[in-house]
Amino acid sequence: MKLSEFELIERVKGLFGREEDRVELSVGDDAAVLRCGELYQMLTCDALTEGSHYLKRWKERVEGFYRKLGKKLINVNASDVASMGGEPRFSLITACFTKESSEEEAQEFFRGVKEAAEELGVAVVGGDTIKGKGELFDCFMVGESSEGYMVRGGAGPGELVGITGTVGDARGGLEILLKGMEVNDYLVNRFLCPTARVKEGRGAVKLGVKCATDVSDGLVFNLHTIAQSSKVAIEVESEKIPLSKELVRVFGKERALHFALYGGEDYELIITFPESLKGKVERIGFKVIGRVREGEGVFVDGKPASPKGFDHFKEE
Amino acid sequence: MKLSEFELIERVKGLFGREEDRVELSVGDDAAVLRCGELYQMLTCDALTEGSHYLKRWKERVEGFYRKLGKKLINVNASDVASMGGEPRFSLITACFTKESSEEEAQEFFRGVKEAAEELGVAVVGGDTIKGKGELFDCFMVGESSEGYMVRGGAGPGELVGITGTVGDARGGLEILLKGMEVNDYLVNRFLCPTARVKEGRGAVKLGVKCATDVSDGLVFNLHTIAQSSKVAIEVESEKIPLSKELVRVFGKERALHFALYGGEDYELIITFPESLKGKVERIGFKVIGRVREGEGVFVDGKPASPKGFDHFKEE
Repeated sequence: MKLSEFELIERVKGLFGREEDRVELSVGDDAAVLRCGELYQMLTCDALTEGSHYLKRWKERVEGFYRKLGKKLINVNASDVASMGGEPRFSLITACFTKESSEEEAQEFFRGVKEAAEELGVAVVGGDTIKGKGELFDCFMVGESSEGYMVRGGAGPGELVGITGTVGDARGGLEILLKGMEVNDYLVNRFLCPTARVKEGRGAVKLGVKCATDVSDGLVFNLHTIAQSSKVAIEVESEKIPLSKELVRVFGKERALHFALYGGEDYELIITFPESLKGKVERIGFKVIGRVREGEGVFVDGKPASPKGFDHFKEE
Repeated sequence: MKLSEFELIERVKGLFGREEDRVELSVGDDAAVLRCGELYQMLTCDALTEGSHYLKRWKERVEGFYRKLGKKLINVNASDVASMGGEPRFSLITACFTKESSEEEAQEFFRGVKEAAEELGVAVVGGDTIKGKGELFDCFMVGESSEGYMVRGGAGPGELVGITGTVGDARGGLEILLKGMEVNDYLVNRFLCPTARVKEGRGAVKLGVKCATDVSDGLVFNLHTIAQSSKVAIEVESEKIPLSKELVRVFGKERALHFALYGGEDYELIITFPESLKGKVERIGFKVIGRVREGEGVFVDGKPASPKGFDHFKEE
C-alpha cells in the first residue's frame, strides 16, 4: 500500500469528524480533547512497530534496548498530551509479540513502560498482550488539564515562536543506528529515550499560551502544521535553533542543522506566544527561535522551507 | 515466545497495579474504571491481528471481509464497556497495514469502523495509521456510566446467572472458516460481526446488578473468571444454555453445546443477580442458566468444568 500516513488521517477525519456535545476537539491535532465537568481530558494513541520505528537488530548494539522502547512508547504519548498542555494520567498498553520475541524482551519492554510511567506519574490501568506477525507496541494515553489546552491552530501574527531543549539529536541517534556508526550514548538515547516535556507544556498552558505542538516529524514539518492550522506564516532564524554540542561534534554544524530542521522524533515542544510573555516563557524552559506573521508557509533565514518529515509509509 | 496471554496480564498487574486516587478499578477486569466527578469512565483496549484473530485468505470467502473486521473491532471493545455497565462513547483506532494490504482493504476497514461507531453512538476522535510486518487493528474505547458499574468479582451465593442471546455461534462461524466448510452467513457473521450488548448491560446496571462479564473466551472460561474473582462456585444447566437453531442444524446438538461451553468471541453478557430481580432481568433480555453458590469452580450439570478458552499465545 502506498497511501501516505497523512492522507489516511485526512480520510479518517472526513469519516469520523462528526459533532458530539462533549468533544472539544476531534481528529487533527496532537490529541483529542473531551470536556468532563471542569476538566479537559486529552486522548491520544501512538504506536511503535518493528521495521518502521525500530529494527530488531539494534538490540545487539544498545544495552536495554527493549526497556528503552517501553520508555519511548510512554514518553511519545505523554508528549502528545504535553503539547496540548495536559498532565498525562492514565494509560493502556497493547503489546504484540511474534514467534521471534523472547520472554526477556517482553520483560524488558514492560520494565521500561513501568519506569517511564512512574517517572511521569502515569497509572497504567490496562492492556492487551497478543501475538502477531510483526512486533508492535501501542499506547493509549489520557491526559488532563483544568487550565484549558493548547492547539496547533492557536498562533497569531506578531507572536514569538519558542522551543524547549535541543533539536536534531534524535535524527542523529537514528543515523548512528541506521549507518552502523560508533554508538554515541547521548544521541542514541535522545532517539530511543525521548523525554516528554510535561512540565514545560503545563507551564505554558498556565501562562495562557494558546498554541503548541511537539517535534515529532521534524521542526520545519511541525511548524508547517502550526502555520497551516493557524493560517499564518512562521519565520525562524537558523542560528537561534538550539543544537546540542554532541550533535555538532559528531555530525558537524551543517548536518546538525539539517537534522534539526528536517529530522523528527525529538519530542521537544514548540509554542507561539505574545511578546509580553517572553520573560516568563523563557524562565520555564523555552528559547525564542522565530516569529509569527501574516501570510503562509515556513521560512528559515527568510527562505521558504518545504515540509519534509518522517512518513512511515514512505519506503526509505 | 510461549508465555500465555493470561500470565502476561498477571505480570502487568503486578507491575502497574498501583494506587491512584481517581482509579476505581485497574488491570484485571473487562475494563479499567476511573472516577470523573459524578461519572464513571471505563477504559479498555482490544486488538485484532492477522494470524491470531483472522486469516487474510478468508477475504476470498466472505464479502466485505475488512468492513466486518472494522465492525468487529468496535463491537469487541464496546462489549468490554457494556459488561462493566457503561455506554461506549469515544474511541481511537490504530491501524497497522503491511506491504500486502490494499487501499481497498483499508477503505473497507474504516467503513466498517464508521458503521459500527455510528450504530453504537461512539465518536471516533483519533487514531494512528502505521506500517508494519503484520496487519493489526487496535482500538481504545472510553465508556461512561453515571449509575455505577459491574465487576467480575460482584457475584454472591444464592444469586442467579443470566446470559443474553445465544452462545457457541461464533465458534461455529470460526470452524466454518478454519475448515473451509460451506459458508453459513448467520454463523460466520456471528463470528465476524458480533454485536456488543450495550442496551442489556446498561439495563442491568440500572437495575442494580453488581456482577457481569462478557463471553470473550468461552462461557465456562468466563464463568471461571466470575467464580474466581467473586470466590464462589457457579452451577449451570446445559439444557438452559441458549443455542441458535442454525448452530444446532449445522453442527448437531452435541457439538453445538461444546462450542457454547468452550468456544469464545460470542460477546454475549453474563450477569449474576438476586432472585428478586428475575422478572426484570428477563424482560431486558437475559435468560437464566444457573445459580451461584458457596464454594469454588464452575459446574455444568453438576460436573466440574475446567476453564478452557481461546488463548492467542497457544499454537493451534
